[in-house]
Amino acid sequence: MARVYNFAAGPAVLPEEVLKEAAEEMLDYKGTGMSVMEMSHRSKAFEKIIGDAETDLRDLMKIPDNYKVLFLQGGASQQFAMIPMNLMKNKVADHINTGQWAKKAIAEGKHYGKINVLASSEDKTFTYIPDLKGLKISDDADYVYICHNNTIYGTKFNELPDIGGKILVADMSSDILSEPVDITKYGLIFAGVQKNIGPAGVVVVIIREDLISEEVLAGTPTMLKYKTHADNKSLYNTPPAYGIYICGKVFKWLQKLGGLEAMKKINEEKAAVLYDFLDSSKMFRGTVVKKDRSMMNVPFVTGSDELDTKFIKEVKAAGFENLKGHRTVGGMRASIYNAMPIQGVKSLVEFMKEFEAHNH
Amino acid sequence: MARVYNFAAGPAVLPEEVLKEAAEEMLDYKGTGMSVMEMSHRSKAFEKIIGDAETDLRDLMKIPDNYKVLFLQGGASQQFAMIPMNLMKNKVADHINTGQWAKKAIAEGKHYGKINVLASSEDKTFTYIPDLKGLKISDDADYVYICHNNTIYGTKFNELPDIGGKILVADMSSDILSEPVDITKYGLIFAGVQKNIGPAGVVVVIIREDLISEEVLAGTPTMLKYKTHADNKSLYNTPPAYGIYICGKVFKWLQKLGGLEAMKKINEEKAAVLYDFLDSSKMFRGTVVKKDRSMMNVPFVTGSDELDTKFIKEVKAAGFENLKGHRTVGGMRASIYNAMPIQGVKSLVEFMKEFEAHNH
Repeated sequence: MARVYNFAAGPAVLPEEVLKEAAEEMLDYKGTGMSVMEMSHRSKAFEKIIGDAETDLRDLMKIPDNYKVLFLQGGASQQFAMIPMNLMKNKVADHINTGQWAKKAIAEGKHYGKINVLASSEDKTFTYIPDLKGLKISDDADYVYICHNNTIYGTKFNELPDIGGKILVADMSSDILSEPVDITKYGLIFAGVQKNIGPAGVVVVIIREDLISEEVLAGTPTMLKYKTHADNKSLYNTPPAYGIYICGKVFKWLQKLGGLEAMKKINEEKAAVLYDFLDSSKMFRGTVVKKDRSMMNVPFVTGSDELDTKFIKEVKAAGFENLKGHRTVGGMRASIYNAMPIQGVKSLVEFMKEFEAHNH
Repeated sequence: MARVYNFAAGPAVLPEEVLKEAAEEMLDYKGTGMSVMEMSHRSKAFEKIIGDAETDLRDLMKIPDNYKVLFLQGGASQQFAMIPMNLMKNKVADHINTGQWAKKAIAEGKHYGKINVLASSEDKTFTYIPDLKGLKISDDADYVYICHNNTIYGTKFNELPDIGGKILVADMSSDILSEPVDITKYGLIFAGVQKNIGPAGVVVVIIREDLISEEVLAGTPTMLKYKTHADNKSLYNTPPAYGIYICGKVFKWLQKLGGLEAMKKINEEKAAVLYDFLDSSKMFRGTVVKKDRSMMNVPFVTGSDELDTKFIKEVKAAGFENLKGHRTVGGMRASIYNAMPIQGVKSLVEFMKEFEAHNH
């Protein structure tokens, strides 16, 4: 068996030891005589799995008691509707447009109320985070929405906008658990797990309790009310149990690594290996304004479409997978999530150096 | 490793060979060097997985070309909203009330329009399917809704109501793929996969093409439009990829068994082992009217709460799991889905015989 270095933007690489454990437990989870896939979600064994997952995530992210942790379905795309349906009391929201996923949230929000786009970086293909000073937060806005890390473009909010007393809502699908965050600055954080946590099909929502209410927009399905899931500890109906089980293993893997401070150091080191090379290379360069760079997604180009194509072909042949950039950006992108080993990044940079030497 | 006989109502037993294959492929799916969990949903490997899953399901169920097959999220509970949001043009639907899941669909439907309950078996704890002769289908109904197999109560529509030219919508979560069905009799069939197909977190929807439209109720989220998923072959956003992969393996397992005619014979044989014993026992009896019995879920009682409790305790100690009946019914329930081996049912009946002999 040869594992590749998988730089996919999501679904993405998972820790090898998590997969090994899952394989070992596939036919008999801890002496239950069954797979977690076959287990009643009302069983003691599964209640412990989902309970531990919540406890461990709370521990890792230092989530205060006045926040609920929910394990939901439907991906970030469903959150784009669920957020306005649940939080739009005045039917107004402020958004910052930093890319495709931010735009999708804006478009969906418009079905439910007025969306003010406070700032956008679309003029330069989202290669930067707009200036956050002088943002005019709307008095009547129910919340301010940001996409915290922009998977496609490789940008990240390395500081947060000053939004006064408003509720900050953040899509952290591609950088959750990459470093510590101060949860108290947010009203709601959500993340599709398939980038930095686990298998596609689970969305983690961290929501301040006072934002959970029966008062939602007319026509909101029961399954799209946060209250439904908060009241039932994510067990209103059968949850995506196997996915939650894998997420739980990833949480324990992070704890063993030393938690999010330790993970952050590793991620900084990994990102530096790649960014330092990009900054010194005469062939390759990063596409993002330095101060707005993501630690998770690193887009880069050679400046020549022909060389990009050659590189993508050769790097794949050498066992580095999914380095082709998003079609809207072109070039290359290396997603270097938590589970990407530093050796993967070092080997990639070695390959890039050789490519540069042979193609200058 | 000792596998138990798992009679859970769902999530439920899966074919052992499917789990073995999944374990073997966990770190390297067919030479890709990665797990299916880690794989881009836009990759060729995954496109083949989801494409084969659809093709094989179409083949097994003989799904005509004018029906779409969708792999969605959110469970049956989300379908309870999605169906009226998409199909209620007149805002009227006819329902038959055959149990808890039928009732949940009725309750959710009422958020979107007028629900006529044409018949109910609630008077006798849903131990039968209401008489379907003389049902008065509403002229203005957009569709007629049934729960085809009632997991909790162990009843099944062994014949379908005559609904004239109306659209029949059926929840087949607990009996899909247990036997052939004539798809053309239905406008929409849906099934949470966690009973008879795969791991929780995937819902299969089979929908006639002419029912898919942009014209949905105001406020319907993009993710809750059938058209969104039909237009994108279930890849509008990241699907629950690993769950779909397991479902695909179960479809191939069914094909190897000989398809749904063969599966039906096995299921009839399995169910007969248990029902024949229940009909001959002086201690145990089935709770459902004979003609309405389910092949998948078999509730039974001794008539004595004390004996029921004793049985549940002893049968579990003997390695038969999840035989306790639903709290609303009491007694016992054996769910004997496709993946339950006939030996499991025979061994259970042996145990019941011995229990009867020792406790008469």
